[in-house]
Amino acid sequence: MADKPSIPRGTRDFGTVQMSKRYYIFDTIKQTFRKFGFQPIETPAMENLSVLLGKYGEEGDKLLFRVLNSGDFLKDSKTEDYEKGSKHLVSKIAEKGLRYDLTVPFARYVVMNRHELTFPFKRYQMQPVWRGDNPQKGRYREFYQCDADVVGTDSLICEAEIVAMIQEVFQNLGIKEYGIKINNRKILAAMSEVVEAHGKEAELCVAIDKLDKIGQEKVNEELKERGFSEDSIQKIQPILKINGSNEAQLAQLRAIFVNSEIGQKGVQELEDVLSYVNFMDLDSSKVEFDVSLARGLSYYTGAIFEVKVKNVQIGSVSGGGRYDNLTGVFGMEGVSGVGFSFGVDRLYDVLEELKLFPTQSADSTQVLICCFDTEGIDFGLQIAQGLRKAGIRTEIYPEATKIKKQLDYANKKQIPFAAVIGSNEIKEQKMMLKNLNTSEQKLMSLQEVIELVLNK
Amino acid sequence: MADKPSIPRGTRDFGTVQMSKRYYIFDTIKQTFRKFGFQPIETPAMENLSVLLGKYGEEGDKLLFRVLNSGDFLKDSKTEDYEKGSKHLVSKIAEKGLRYDLTVPFARYVVMNRHELTFPFKRYQMQPVWRGDNPQKGRYREFYQCDADVVGTDSLICEAEIVAMIQEVFQNLGIKEYGIKINNRKILAAMSEVVEAHGKEAELCVAIDKLDKIGQEKVNEELKERGFSEDSIQKIQPILKINGSNEAQLAQLRAIFVNSEIGQKGVQELEDVLSYVNFMDLDSSKVEFDVSLARGLSYYTGAIFEVKVKNVQIGSVSGGGRYDNLTGVFGMEGVSGVGFSFGVDRLYDVLEELKLFPTQSADSTQVLICCFDTEGIDFGLQIAQGLRKAGIRTEIYPEATKIKKQLDYANKKQIPFAAVIGSNEIKEQKMMLKNLNTSEQKLMSLQEVIELVLNK
Repeated sequence: MADKPSIPRGTRDFGTVQMSKRYYIFDTIKQTFRKFGFQPIETPAMENLSVLLGKYGEEGDKLLFRVLNSGDFLKDSKTEDYEKGSKHLVSKIAEKGLRYDLTVPFARYVVMNRHELTFPFKRYQMQPVWRGDNPQKGRYREFYQCDADVVGTDSLICEAEIVAMIQEVFQNLGIKEYGIKINNRKILAAMSEVVEAHGKEAELCVAIDKLDKIGQEKVNEELKERGFSEDSIQKIQPILKINGSNEAQLAQLRAIFVNSEIGQKGVQELEDVLSYVNFMDLDSSKVEFDVSLARGLSYYTGAIFEVKVKNVQIGSVSGGGRYDNLTGVFGMEGVSGVGFSFGVDRLYDVLEELKLFPTQSADSTQVLICCFDTEGIDFGLQIAQGLRKAGIRTEIYPEATKIKKQLDYANKKQIPFAAVIGSNEIKEQKMMLKNLNTSEQKLMSLQEVIELVLNK
Repeated sequence: MADKPSIPRGTRDFGTVQMSKRYYIFDTIKQTFRKFGFQPIETPAMENLSVLLGKYGEEGDKLLFRVLNSGDFLKDSKTEDYEKGSKHLVSKIAEKGLRYDLTVPFARYVVMNRHELTFPFKRYQMQPVWRGDNPQKGRYREFYQCDADVVGTDSLICEAEIVAMIQEVFQNLGIKEYGIKINNRKILAAMSEVVEAHGKEAELCVAIDKLDKIGQEKVNEELKERGFSEDSIQKIQPILKINGSNEAQLAQLRAIFVNSEIGQKGVQELEDVLSYVNFMDLDSSKVEFDVSLARGLSYYTGAIFEVKVKNVQIGSVSGGGRYDNLTGVFGMEGVSGVGFSFGVDRLYDVLEELKLFPTQSADSTQVLICCFDTEGIDFGLQIAQGLRKAGIRTEIYPEATKIKKQLDYANKKQIPFAAVIGSNEIKEQKMMLKNLNTSEQKLMSLQEVIELVLNK
């Protein structure tokens, strides 16, 4: 007996219902990207390990899936290489790995095609990535990323347009309650200047991030535990107290950072972005300056974003920021860019939880032709083609089996109409159209059915 | 200095222009699949090697890309395993491989989800596959397949609908000169019965396939070289001589196969398919019965198809057939199905060669906003959002640099309109709209521009 087949741990099949929902998300995002002048590229699933290694930290290197060289993969190794263990042998037997994100392949693409590209270069990319993480709820070994980036300009218009794109995507998906948190890496740098704790921005942020929940005193306790001096903690108190509108908070920071050049610059950049957002007729109440927002990735140098949907379990569904030297690692210096990414799997869960997926899928069958007997099939085929020519998604049940079985098929596939063909229908050259939601039925001509279905 | 980055041999990046053409092909195919009631599924890039091995013959097994187990991949092996060589060691260090086609993962999917699926189950799937072939012109190590299959019915309506789908896709792509070759594995079986050369169908076909080019005598010589007996060659002569319309050829075969049950069945099946095609109001002149069509894959048991575009270098762009036991290898017997596949890379080359790609891409930017100075940008952002709200794909050049540089950008990206904003335009709350094809320009309001661009 054959073995029961299975799929690798942490990977998923997507069935027709899931795919139709996933396409709905992809198409909504794509449409917005295009409306803002972003165009797609695709890069190969496999990259040379020389491109991938060292870009994601030590932990990332461990999580890369490596692909064995083709043919006799041991031919460039010796027994002693084997005996030195996996870490040593791997470089002799695997030159390629699966991409870990879309950012590094994009940087590689820009460097390799620098002479053909038109800058500022705006691209979007929607492809799966692979990480050997331990699978758990909501964390997979294969998942899609949807990235949009502009490189070759440091204009803050790009930041404002990212806010606009996020708002358009959320509006089109029907998500009403969400916040776009925004901060600037330069403000984080200024904060550590002020408290004289350079390089400890991340720890500072983790503690400050809890301000809303645990209050100022507990934050101070945590800072102490994390090794910040009394003096540092005193100096940070004014930053913890900033309040009011985005503009008000930024004005307070400007005063606090009076002696910090980088602090002034960070505040100025944020003010410019918020001013652009105002001119773009966007919902600026959705944009929330958050001095504690840090984002993990170390390559950010300017604005940073994070989008959270409210009233759902899932947190962040999108994020990004500005980087000044993404391509430097491949020898192309000084290319500033800004990008962001939608998490499709998380958006999927959000739309499910909020019941925001359209009930009628845009790609499912609209009419099922059901024939009583083989005589009906020839006429049924004609009708099917007539409906399709009118743009109606149509199936003909391929066997002249019991009508009940055919209607069951329609119901299971949520097909709204069945066109039943028996001997009377053939004689009249019409069909009995059943509305499967209301059970109403009526003898109709092809033209009448086309009009009914298209105007439904 | 950083190394120059590169991509793995046989893989490709797709830039924005290529992607827009590729999406055009994907979307055209998808639309047709949906119109016939096929719905998408996706399976993971990595499959367990237990699923893949042994399904593609010995050669296929060699061409599978294998993924190293995560973590210490050597932990289940010993030095003696290493010393036995690659072929032995591989099973201890790699459990997963990249999918080689979409058919085996589909069969696995059907078996794993048999209790949830509604049969007949119609799915399409468009995803990349990976093969460690030696790269050469037109042959890549990563390429897309676009498959549609129906499983769970042996109705020949499905075969006729495949002909209809191919015709619709080709019509929508503007390909006019092509032939859908059709044959039936049962006819090939009957042929080898007649010539008493069981199991040599493939060799028979390779020789017969050349009939058009080299003539009957040379075909006979080749058959001799391939070891067919004089007697066999004599017996095959009537088959080589069949001629006339599809119907006429089938009638002649029916007579030749008078004593072959399987031959009669094959002819009957083809006659039924052709009869359905007639009822579907299709161009039946495009459907060419070809007794020499064999198709390599051994799992076909009924109809087989191959589509060739005429007047181009590239041969077959689509093919498929019926199989009676695709899922048997995973323990689910007796599931008949029929499917076919479009070769996207080949279709791409055909459309390039025949110059059939639309000149204006459906996703490129329609208007570029160009600002003389930073004062213009605030007004420019308002206009950009106004155009986008009307559904117009709009970019604002992110820097107030020289207008010439901005127009160069528009020309390189083939953006048809530029909306230039200087101090006069701000005062008038209008924009100077330049048609970049004709160089005409006119001062226009937002509403006027929307109307002009939408009605272009």
